[in-house]
Amino acid sequence: MDPYMIQMSSKGNLSSILDVHVNVGGRSSVPGKMKGRKARWSVRPSDMAKKTFNPIRAIVDNMKVKPNPNKTMISLSIGDPTVFGNLPTDPEVTQAMKDALDSGKYNGYAPSIGFLSSREEIASYYHCPEAPLEAKDVILTSGCSQAIDLCLAVLANPGQNILVPRPGFSLYKTLAESMGIEVKLYNLLPEKSWEIDLKQLEYLIDEKTACLIVNNPSNPCGSVFSKRHLQKILAVAARQCVPILADEIYGDMVFSDCKYEPLATLSTDVPILSCGGLAKRWLVPGWRLGWILIHDRRDIFGNEIRDGLVKLSQRILGPCTIVQGALKSILCRTPGEFYHNTLSFLKSNADLCYGALAAIPGLRPVRPSGAMYLMVGIEMEHFPEFENDVEFTERLVAEQSVHCLPATCFEYPNFIRVVITVPEVMMLEACSRIQEFCEQHYHCAEGSQEECDK
Amino acid sequence: MDPYMIQMSSKGNLSSILDVHVNVGGRSSVPGKMKGRKARWSVRPSDMAKKTFNPIRAIVDNMKVKPNPNKTMISLSIGDPTVFGNLPTDPEVTQAMKDALDSGKYNGYAPSIGFLSSREEIASYYHCPEAPLEAKDVILTSGCSQAIDLCLAVLANPGQNILVPRPGFSLYKTLAESMGIEVKLYNLLPEKSWEIDLKQLEYLIDEKTACLIVNNPSNPCGSVFSKRHLQKILAVAARQCVPILADEIYGDMVFSDCKYEPLATLSTDVPILSCGGLAKRWLVPGWRLGWILIHDRRDIFGNEIRDGLVKLSQRILGPCTIVQGALKSILCRTPGEFYHNTLSFLKSNADLCYGALAAIPGLRPVRPSGAMYLMVGIEMEHFPEFENDVEFTERLVAEQSVHCLPATCFEYPNFIRVVITVPEVMMLEACSRIQEFCEQHYHCAEGSQEECDK
Repeated sequence: MDPYMIQMSSKGNLSSILDVHVNVGGRSSVPGKMKGRKARWSVRPSDMAKKTFNPIRAIVDNMKVKPNPNKTMISLSIGDPTVFGNLPTDPEVTQAMKDALDSGKYNGYAPSIGFLSSREEIASYYHCPEAPLEAKDVILTSGCSQAIDLCLAVLANPGQNILVPRPGFSLYKTLAESMGIEVKLYNLLPEKSWEIDLKQLEYLIDEKTACLIVNNPSNPCGSVFSKRHLQKILAVAARQCVPILADEIYGDMVFSDCKYEPLATLSTDVPILSCGGLAKRWLVPGWRLGWILIHDRRDIFGNEIRDGLVKLSQRILGPCTIVQGALKSILCRTPGEFYHNTLSFLKSNADLCYGALAAIPGLRPVRPSGAMYLMVGIEMEHFPEFENDVEFTERLVAEQSVHCLPATCFEYPNFIRVVITVPEVMMLEACSRIQEFCEQHYHCAEGSQEECDK
Repeated sequence: MDPYMIQMSSKGNLSSILDVHVNVGGRSSVPGKMKGRKARWSVRPSDMAKKTFNPIRAIVDNMKVKPNPNKTMISLSIGDPTVFGNLPTDPEVTQAMKDALDSGKYNGYAPSIGFLSSREEIASYYHCPEAPLEAKDVILTSGCSQAIDLCLAVLANPGQNILVPRPGFSLYKTLAESMGIEVKLYNLLPEKSWEIDLKQLEYLIDEKTACLIVNNPSNPCGSVFSKRHLQKILAVAARQCVPILADEIYGDMVFSDCKYEPLATLSTDVPILSCGGLAKRWLVPGWRLGWILIHDRRDIFGNEIRDGLVKLSQRILGPCTIVQGALKSILCRTPGEFYHNTLSFLKSNADLCYGALAAIPGLRPVRPSGAMYLMVGIEMEHFPEFENDVEFTERLVAEQSVHCLPATCFEYPNFIRVVITVPEVMMLEACSRIQEFCEQHYHCAEGSQEECDK
């Protein structure tokens, strides 16, 4: 809809239109141009702005509840590992930034896809024989969000569709719909540790499918796909000739009993754009350094997709050059213990949270294997006071000052997402408050008296 | 054009299509979905990627000439004040970044429009009675490029048009055309120190005009509009009810004989989005910290445009949080001498360059009043060997190893843009090489023997 068209066709206020015509004619001295000018002010946001919709913001901002004033707030809602101060980045990471500042070499513009030297560092860090990488295969971006934005922008036209996991990170939909790209949701199965319903996935693919988004390890699920499952996903993509956007921002963030397989290392014939960044593994999400790794196969992307990504990167240029300059030291000097300690902490908190919540009647947590989250099913039939997960979380804030995200934010009602990066003592306190809350509101469902007696 | 549609309609290879159908039918167990699937791989870049065109890159990358091996290269082509090392940022600016790093407070996510405290700092720094600002009027962005991108994205729909200066910064067109927004060029007049041809400007406005871009001080012209001229521009916008996008990235960068007037300080009835950033004045273009200042008037933007900008900012989030955290100190502690010294240097180089080039037959430099550039007209009739400014600059590289940008990059043929941030000795050397080059190639135009005898 063009707001000006609407405005021009509502000619109720004819005199004001005429006024303008007289003025214009009098001053511009260019005749014959009076038609079609604007009669009065009417500045409206574009369709793109109107279509840009962040469901988390919409849902959370509408939750106008106050926390219980007698209990300190515990926020388990934001996927930002830095907010509690218990997970600082490594001193080497900070030092790398200072060195880049002191060098004076990184204040100027970088190429829009990033400094060659920085791209070389990323390429050699993530290179492996099954998925070789050179600097030309790396595009640095302003955070993983821009990486995903560029990938969608290069692969899909308005009117095409992309396949997105449900539950899944809301940004995929926000970006796609702002560009007029349709989102088709494929299901993850909680009873199978959030593996993809592959039959449904394949069923959804049609001639307008531009790409398949695979998020592994998963936000919001904390799940990690097995090699076998990833191979099955690749087989679907290969059969259907659909390229993959692999959101691997939580890459390498898997617990000790589990292995992370970069999707591209398993692919011989499906081209993959893998998106990552410093945000989560190096615990600096605010620094906005992300990347796209171009894993072409059989020249299916070819120069066209590469060139398209380069061209799109020129719209706003890349990430902060100081972070680019620090990249080599960040990758080479961060000690192994840093990663290890982060993951040990997350696993310990995950076990603790899972154990505590699994013991609460009415809740069904799904054990995570990586990332920073845990999804908890709510047996809504046992909480008849609450209409849905949004109301459940609202009341949890109001009564217990514990804030989780309702999984409606991730297109998955009747679940909540718990962030497990909080200090252990807060994690325990939160679980005990959730327990109190559930005990207070738990009702036996009809026909299940037996279970309630337990 | 949908590449898949094209591919599906060329059914030469029927057997491969059938193969896929058989596979799909056999495995998906979902019948009736075989039509419309993809027969084979065909991944093409989107229309947006194809439409994203950076004329500077296209022209410069196609200039496949080698510099003269006997002369060291002097690049006067890139608007990056840091490349020669003679214009470092102030030590306070670097220290501010280190302090932000050491605080450990700026590693996490900021709100997508920037930290409240950082927006407050920008608001109070640029606030003045004629153009008041609060934190809510400030949106921090990943460089001024993203600021311009968000402004265009919120104001214009595909099919609408924007008014852009000629000569002008090529990014406006790159961004607009990638979004399907038409660009209409209004003329700047070199004989009037690059003032706008206001009649032509007003003539170009039609009912589909979404905004007017005013760039002051100007890249590539180095011109600075007078208060009187800015008032006339505002009068056109007010008569035609067109909001203004003021690209003021070179704001405050004017020479001592001249005054910079932020456009919004002169506007009582035209709403303005002013775009700026740290890049040029603080000499850190790579850090990618820009901003939008929302100067609404008579509630014409209203909440809708503000909300639209906020929503669009959520697509990729804002600038690096370390730079955001450093903002207060950067604004408050950078000493006055730093700005003064930069401008003195630029003015001295501008005078030197203007003086030298004005004495060269066949060249007509236009004296700049600010920013970092100088435009030089080439009397092409005196250089018949060269077809245009692109060929002129190519040969200048090949023979003299001096690289200027042909102003065809700015939609303004037969001019070249000279960057005046180089050290003085290089500026002089470059001018003397340009002189030698012009003398070697200067031909008397027919009927102007008189001038050639001089």
